[in-house]
Amino acid sequence: MQQIIDFILELDKLKGVTRKVRPLGLERYENSAEHSWQLALAAVSLAHYAASPVEINRVIGMLLVHDIGEIDAGDVMVYAEGGWVERKAAELAAVTRIFGLLPDPQGARFLALWQEFEDAQTPEARFAHAIDRAMPVLLNLANGGQSWRENGISHERVVGRIGPPIQAGCPALWDYLEARLADMHRRGWCGVQE
Amino acid sequence: MQQIIDFILELDKLKGVTRKVRPLGLERYENSAEHSWQLALAAVSLAHYAASPVEINRVIGMLLVHDIGEIDAGDVMVYAEGGWVERKAAELAAVTRIFGLLPDPQGARFLALWQEFEDAQTPEARFAHAIDRAMPVLLNLANGGQSWRENGISHERVVGRIGPPIQAGCPALWDYLEARLADMHRRGWCGVQE
Repeated sequence: MQQIIDFILELDKLKGVTRKVRPLGLERYENSAEHSWQLALAAVSLAHYAASPVEINRVIGMLLVHDIGEIDAGDVMVYAEGGWVERKAAELAAVTRIFGLLPDPQGARFLALWQEFEDAQTPEARFAHAIDRAMPVLLNLANGGQSWRENGISHERVVGRIGPPIQAGCPALWDYLEARLADMHRRGWCGVQE
Repeated sequence: MQQIIDFILELDKLKGVTRKVRPLGLERYENSAEHSWQLALAAVSLAHYAASPVEINRVIGMLLVHDIGEIDAGDVMVYAEGGWVERKAAELAAVTRIFGLLPDPQGARFLALWQEFEDAQTPEARFAHAIDRAMPVLLNLANGGQSWRENGISHERVVGRIGPPIQAGCPALWDYLEARLADMHRRGWCGVQE
């Protein structure tokens, strides 16, 4: 029991890992724990739009654990250039440590979910990636592009970086986002030079 | 699609609903969105200690949605006296509104999960309640009883209020907590007069 409690308390640290987008109406930045919660519910709500039928419970499991490596490795914006190999190695070391706090088989189960998400090969993992990529876009479309403005991200970089994974996992969601992004672009892209 | 997006963005408001306990090592108060995320993973980790076998996916679903009524009704500490009937009515109105943003059948599915949690009759709901009650206790045991000290909550009130539901849903967890709470009591209960 103590091992499990240690794991649960270790999870608390993800509440302190901040991302680049702010929750709507709040001044502070979003953290990776509340982000993971929202992703799980977004995935359930959008499941019938997945590119191919998915076992939604595995999608939920992946989304709940996919950011836990950030407890040791921190969050890096998807638009960051380079350093991804080192970053992925750091995250794997982190989740090996953190899920290793748990007795098996549960530790191994969480690690398998995390790895399935990373590999992005199954329909469930692709759909989970689409939701993960789409969520900050939805928030930026609703808040005038706050995190894109603060980080100098152009329309072209958004479309180029998040278009393919969203299209692969949830094409109808990408159709929606692409039209909204094009509209934002037409009206003057949140002040970033392109 | 727009209805679903509206629902997902509405969920953002739960990130702004603050609770009484602070995440370990942080100055700010915990919010109900990150709390719900942690509960889901805690439930998976403790599932084999449930009072009777549970369908863990329904437990996860309940824990992810159980606090959404707080978007309109706010969070109230479990030790609050009175006002529970009005509060439950306000939460039901809130979730009816919020899940009603979604097309059926998904809106109805979320509402059914929320109601199952509220009714606390199934093994899954009882286990989910045990996890929900235990989580702030675990944080208080790890941070010197911060939210009990700030709100003048005695050992007796903690044990009386959260003991029965945790015992009913996850007896081994209650055995663990009861011993830890008794130990804290012996060493001088975080400064609150009893």
